[in-house]
Amino acid sequence: MDKVKILGFGGSLRKGSYSTALLHAAEEAAPEGVEVELWERIPDIPPFNQDEEKTPPPVIIDFKARIKRADAILIATPEYNYSFPGYLKNAIDWASRPYGDNAFAEKPAAIFSSSTGSIGGARAQYHLRQCFVFLGMQPINMPECIVDHAQDKVGEDGKLNDPKTRKRITEVLEALAVWTRQIKKQ
Amino acid sequence: MDKVKILGFGGSLRKGSYSTALLHAAEEAAPEGVEVELWERIPDIPPFNQDEEKTPPPVIIDFKARIKRADAILIATPEYNYSFPGYLKNAIDWASRPYGDNAFAEKPAAIFSSSTGSIGGARAQYHLRQCFVFLGMQPINMPECIVDHAQDKVGEDGKLNDPKTRKRITEVLEALAVWTRQIKKQ
Amino acid sequence: MDKVKILGFGGSLRKGSYSTALLHAAEEAAPEGVEVELWERIPDIPPFNQDEEKTPPPVIIDFKARIKRADAILIATPEYNYSFPGYLKNAIDWASRPYGDNAFAEKPAAIFSSSTGSIGGARAQYHLRQCFVFLGMQPINMPECIVDHAQDKVGEDGKLNDPKTRKRITEVLEALAVWTRQIKKQ
Amino acid sequence: MDKVKILGFGGSLRKGSYSTALLHAAEEAAPEGVEVELWERIPDIPPFNQDEEKTPPPVIIDFKARIKRADAILIATPEYNYSFPGYLKNAIDWASRPYGDNAFAEKPAAIFSSSTGSIGGARAQYHLRQCFVFLGMQPINMPECIVDHAQDKVGEDGKLNDPKTRKRITEVLEALAVWTRQIKKQ
Repeated sequence: MDKVKILGFGGSLRKGSYSTALLHAAEEAAPEGVEVELWERIPDIPPFNQDEEKTPPPVIIDFKARIKRADAILIATPEYNYSFPGYLKNAIDWASRPYGDNAFAEKPAAIFSSSTGSIGGARAQYHLRQCFVFLGMQPINMPECIVDHAQDKVGEDGKLNDPKTRKRITEVLEALAVWTRQIKKQ
Repeated sequence: MDKVKILGFGGSLRKGSYSTALLHAAEEAAPEGVEVELWERIPDIPPFNQDEEKTPPPVIIDFKARIKRADAILIATPEYNYSFPGYLKNAIDWASRPYGDNAFAEKPAAIFSSSTGSIGGARAQYHLRQCFVFLGMQPINMPECIVDHAQDKVGEDGKLNDPKTRKRITEVLEALAVWTRQIKKQ
Repeated sequence: MDKVKILGFGGSLRKGSYSTALLHAAEEAAPEGVEVELWERIPDIPPFNQDEEKTPPPVIIDFKARIKRADAILIATPEYNYSFPGYLKNAIDWASRPYGDNAFAEKPAAIFSSSTGSIGGARAQYHLRQCFVFLGMQPINMPECIVDHAQDKVGEDGKLNDPKTRKRITEVLEALAVWTRQIKKQ
Repeated sequence: MDKVKILGFGGSLRKGSYSTALLHAAEEAAPEGVEVELWERIPDIPPFNQDEEKTPPPVIIDFKARIKRADAILIATPEYNYSFPGYLKNAIDWASRPYGDNAFAEKPAAIFSSSTGSIGGARAQYHLRQCFVFLGMQPINMPECIVDHAQDKVGEDGKLNDPKTRKRITEVLEALAVWTRQIKKQ
């Protein structure tokens, strides 16, 4: 493995999304030996219908191909109603199907969460982790990236402007790269 | 309150959905004094975008009006990746917004879950319940309706044909009606 | 119901416990018409053994009697390993048994959590709430009492000295009293 | 690593415990290259008190030494009140402390759960997994060992007599051994 290639997705769909800001910061703040590619087509995904899982729309074919090519997965999520957003779960549901063609199988992973309050979207993280069990993903444990009071850390230009959070992002990507090399034995 | 009016939604989007079968059975098996209305437009809901929450699409205006009119809420869910489906969360996320106009506030609720295995979708139930905390919903605790081996209980015609499950559905609706009258003091 | 009588327990067992400070503050900050009684014998409870559940030790007989007499339950918890402490779960396990004599059945409830970090023990709250489903308890949803950076809010004398948290405690007790009267129809 | 040495603990404290039966079956059903050692002193552990964490009782010194020596951890749990037992959490809380001396750090792990109903203790598994995040443990995802209707699979002699469950136990231990070797790069 020359570089650890990480596919990042999630965010919220509004302009000025804090989660999207974290994803863009990850692109820039990736440490040596790590490459972050973002996938931002969640708004194009229709509601998952199992009757169509064997003939998915092109957006899902693209999504699954990118997940499979990636060495590791990065998910950035806001917290809606004490969990992660429905459109994010819907994207994951599509990419995990049909049975026997789960794109996430055995992928190392990390999560970023954020919110305007002091909990920083933490509740969304543990719901995602429960999904990872069935998806067969292997998330890192620490460090966690839980961004509280996100409105104070992302500017009006939609960019992360908090050095401490930027440092944490680099640390998470570094830990994810180490973990990915470790479980791939490379 | 003459009748307890329950709005049911959820299901999976495939033909022959077990969850949808449970919702239709609820319509038929409602006890005296309980009326179940189903809402089946989840496939029409776009991904939630906070920038549009104050001008939601007509399908959401309809959904929220029906939720508000209902005395209580019934959600039927399959289990996808150890949680409930993304399109169901997406519907809930829309109906809970914008801030100050959460349609679910203070609604009594019950959940049906189902799966083909022996866990019966139970994992989806507790994730939903965590959302209910922020949504301000008041779910009944018991009896739970967790339908395992659903493929043996729903016929090729998409109808529930298991008398024990039908009885359980009636019991849940009865408990939900009692609970609704209790907390509305009527 | 003249007064709403609330039984409070939990805390951590160390001197200077933040959770215990919150319980003591609840005693003092209870609003008009609410009485908080604390039960502090968790250190005396042996590990739960189902073989002994029909002949529990005196400490459990006392605990269950007090729970049953109470109109509502208040649990204060720290967060250990992203959940609530084992000794607190052990106390709850004892008081819920044997089958048919669960002291918590149908009790309204509220939770206080605290930690030294910014999450304030929130993770412990949702694990407790999942237990409440089986226990048949009816927790209030809002307001939540999640005390972050607790070391800045409790003095060396082990007393809560943060007016904002004290106000929140009063609000939670008030909401619990309203909810208790509502579901008891009084 | 010659053999993968797994430390197993948990169980319930009653005679005839199904969880304990699963642990004993793991001792016998361990595949080639895997050794399971059981630790059964949970009844001797007092309630965790942070004031005493630097001078723990001898039972904890013994427990932590055995955890540290083990290559991987196996926890067998019943389900009490939709989570795992308090005495099991209490044991874990002790062994994770004081800060900087968490015996579980970076340990690969697997869980067995069981119950007399059809859910097989699954709810206890996901609560344990949330604790594993903070503990820094790395559980396998699949296969899961969720033993439903345990009373039909364990004899009056307290021994597992169900060949299918025994096979599953061997499969879990095998997967845990593969995973342990994988992440230790040996």
